[in-house]
Amino acid sequence: MQAYLALEERFRKLSGIEGALAVLHWDFATMMPPGGLDARAGQIAALQSLHHERLTAPETSALLENAGQHRKDMDIWQQANLRMMRHKWKHAVAVENDLLTEFSLAGTNCEMVWRRARADNDFASLIPHQQRVVDLARQVAAAKAEAFGCSPYEALLDKYDPGRTTREIDTMFDNLAQFLPTFLKNVLEHQRGEQDSEPLEGPFPADKQEKLGRKFMTALGFDFTHGRLDTSAHPFCGGVSDDIRLTTRYDTSDFATGLMGILHETGHALYEQHLPEAWRRQPVGEVPSMTLHESQSLLIEMQVSRGRDFIAYAAPIIAEMFGRRGSAWEAANLRRHAIRVRPGLIRVDADEITYPLHIVLRYRIEQALIAGKMQVRDIPEAWNAAMKDLLDIDVPSDRDGCMQDIHWTDGSFGYFPTYTLGALYAAQFFHTAKTRHPEIIYGIRKGDFFPLTGWLKENIHSKASLLSPNDLLIQVTGEGLNIEIYKSYLKNRYLS
Amino acid sequence: MQAYLALEERFRKLSGIEGALAVLHWDFATMMPPGGLDARAGQIAALQSLHHERLTAPETSALLENAGQHRKDMDIWQQANLRMMRHKWKHAVAVENDLLTEFSLAGTNCEMVWRRARADNDFASLIPHQQRVVDLARQVAAAKAEAFGCSPYEALLDKYDPGRTTREIDTMFDNLAQFLPTFLKNVLEHQRGEQDSEPLEGPFPADKQEKLGRKFMTALGFDFTHGRLDTSAHPFCGGVSDDIRLTTRYDTSDFATGLMGILHETGHALYEQHLPEAWRRQPVGEVPSMTLHESQSLLIEMQVSRGRDFIAYAAPIIAEMFGRRGSAWEAANLRRHAIRVRPGLIRVDADEITYPLHIVLRYRIEQALIAGKMQVRDIPEAWNAAMKDLLDIDVPSDRDGCMQDIHWTDGSFGYFPTYTLGALYAAQFFHTAKTRHPEIIYGIRKGDFFPLTGWLKENIHSKASLLSPNDLLIQVTGEGLNIEIYKSYLKNRYLS
Repeated sequence: MQAYLALEERFRKLSGIEGALAVLHWDFATMMPPGGLDARAGQIAALQSLHHERLTAPETSALLENAGQHRKDMDIWQQANLRMMRHKWKHAVAVENDLLTEFSLAGTNCEMVWRRARADNDFASLIPHQQRVVDLARQVAAAKAEAFGCSPYEALLDKYDPGRTTREIDTMFDNLAQFLPTFLKNVLEHQRGEQDSEPLEGPFPADKQEKLGRKFMTALGFDFTHGRLDTSAHPFCGGVSDDIRLTTRYDTSDFATGLMGILHETGHALYEQHLPEAWRRQPVGEVPSMTLHESQSLLIEMQVSRGRDFIAYAAPIIAEMFGRRGSAWEAANLRRHAIRVRPGLIRVDADEITYPLHIVLRYRIEQALIAGKMQVRDIPEAWNAAMKDLLDIDVPSDRDGCMQDIHWTDGSFGYFPTYTLGALYAAQFFHTAKTRHPEIIYGIRKGDFFPLTGWLKENIHSKASLLSPNDLLIQVTGEGLNIEIYKSYLKNRYLS
Repeated sequence: MQAYLALEERFRKLSGIEGALAVLHWDFATMMPPGGLDARAGQIAALQSLHHERLTAPETSALLENAGQHRKDMDIWQQANLRMMRHKWKHAVAVENDLLTEFSLAGTNCEMVWRRARADNDFASLIPHQQRVVDLARQVAAAKAEAFGCSPYEALLDKYDPGRTTREIDTMFDNLAQFLPTFLKNVLEHQRGEQDSEPLEGPFPADKQEKLGRKFMTALGFDFTHGRLDTSAHPFCGGVSDDIRLTTRYDTSDFATGLMGILHETGHALYEQHLPEAWRRQPVGEVPSMTLHESQSLLIEMQVSRGRDFIAYAAPIIAEMFGRRGSAWEAANLRRHAIRVRPGLIRVDADEITYPLHIVLRYRIEQALIAGKMQVRDIPEAWNAAMKDLLDIDVPSDRDGCMQDIHWTDGSFGYFPTYTLGALYAAQFFHTAKTRHPEIIYGIRKGDFFPLTGWLKENIHSKASLLSPNDLLIQVTGEGLNIEIYKSYLKNRYLS
């Protein structure tokens, strides 16, 4: 047990570095003046390099080896903790420190170039920087693939969704790519046949939007003594479990953007705040995959907040906050807005039905990039063709096409699939929850979220990484990932 | 030269950790929700420990040794850089990593206890925690004293003011402790004979105070693309040179508190922003001592901003911002407020004349604590006796007595003297500047600070740590520290 306990101490320190990095990222997105960029890049690179150095030190390997021989003395949490330590270690040790630093700096640099290139709609200027990031990501992927014995793309994916195979994703995404375009047509037709939504006239002052958001966060059980709400260009949930930093942005002509951002990030935040206190700052105490993390944000945003029951509770609160009255502000009309489907160019603005198609497109392109079957200069053509094919949309500019996302600029290949996998998990979890516990829906309708959040905490959040994502799903819902639940949820919401 | 260049690389990474720590401290004081404390303490302890580990690694010592043999190949900046590297190294290597971690955690813990103890005016509950910090500080001091060959207190002092001896401080502080009480009586009498100041009626909304502060910061040349202004319980200047974070606090019944906080911290900030860009993230590129840092904040706050010329320029701007008019808002009356002397209990609220006496008191007590001649339980009696002796003030409670400062709770013994030494340096620098360059004063009177800040940048700020603090003082003013300049400045300002 001594080796295991020494590992706990080691990973506690590593977690301190990870926490510091989370604060640096949050500050970068919310507070940092533009001139601080170089200094910040240096701080982040220094911490990442030290983290890698320490995680891959010979002592760590020796301790992991040694602890592995004494599994029988450990309880199930300790065993799971050792498994998660190995997971982090194997990702780190597969890559040389120098390559990691090069990758990190190339990513920061490419992100800077991208900001300007996107503003100028100038993809050509981005190409060499993005190609550099792709080349380095391929080196990282190749090194990991060799160590893990899987394909390079799966090796990257494994960081965000451990154990996930491209075969599983291909099957599900092909299914969606087949199902959704036709389904979309049906929904658009269905919605054309329904009553038109009345417009929600602005303006909506940012301070009132924030107040409204805080009200719902509080109702959902967000603990403000352990977190904050701020604004940033793109909403995110950062920080550490005991100090969660949510952000959103406010559009004074459309309150729903900011509010949905808050509700989505609150889903992430509740997960973090409900993680087991006994395992803070240990790998087993973390969320096991980004897919599961996303499932919780989408469960709150899509399954709950765009549902009839939540809107029935929320409508009068929203109307009162903005001092509005009349039929436009009643639940029926707000719901029409909440589930309005309209294919568009931009992923982050997409509705629930077209969103997965944006993901399928990105998944296919990034797979090709990592496999070396596509070069960066060929992205626009592939992008625009896929937009036409999947969404029947013509892309007028790279700015609103292949340059819209930040993910590739800093080399986060393998991340995109977790958005849609998360949506599938969310549907399956919520289906189980409300079927087994009808009081969850009654609660939501009166603004009492405890039945729901208590269930999430007990069955998902407090389990942290005790089980693998798939085992957790089976334990909670009684089966593995079942795409039919997702599809019937969509039919039920959008065609009934 | 290879060894030296490897050291630059090593210290660049260490500077990345230091910068990350600066962001974590700023966030702690301005943004962090209370529940984030434990996580933050862990992050800070992890980074400090890694910093220490890396700085004291055998490779660092070997490189320092090796580089020292090739001094002749280096230019003067590189030589000075090597000297500063050695300074940091000798402080780190003198103390075991475990002791450092223990000291850091005891300090965080004591600070937490202190917050509550101070609120409850309960010194007894603080004693064991404060005694623990003192005991650990004595261990650190003893280890360093042995390594440096000086007294334990001087070993602590050396961190904030390298090379300073207690004999120098004793001489100067004894001089002040003799001079100031009598001088204070004369000033109080003099001010009683003068016209009473008219009250400045509030309220002063915080947003207008902030706007006013930003106006003066901009006028002084603060670069907002490389910094921010926020609020915190105690004003400070944090962050890194390229991303400076100022804070102040706003009292809606007294705008001067917040404004003077801003002007003081802007003095610190200009120093940081004017440090040589070519030496960013290297030891020689940093401010050489806390005494010099304080000299620049006090130069702006005390020498400049409470002077006739600044107030003549600022009065109409202040009156306009708050929408006030009449004789109370004219320069003559504002000046009466700015230099009003009134002995009080609280150091941070003290005027320029009584402030050094607060420091002398703390200096004597902390010297006794580190020498083991006083125990923590004996502090209140010593404190109250010294307040009576030096300031003729009865201390009604420990809350406003020996528990008012944060410095001892986290073990920053040796820091207090830099406040008053800084005031002496400030007077000497400003005396030289305005004597040699009369345009500086003309500039201030019209709100053109460039003659002043340009002189500061050229002669002090851009020199960073090229020279020792004392050599810099001699180079700039033509002599070593001369307390008579300070005393005649006080006489001139307060008795004429």
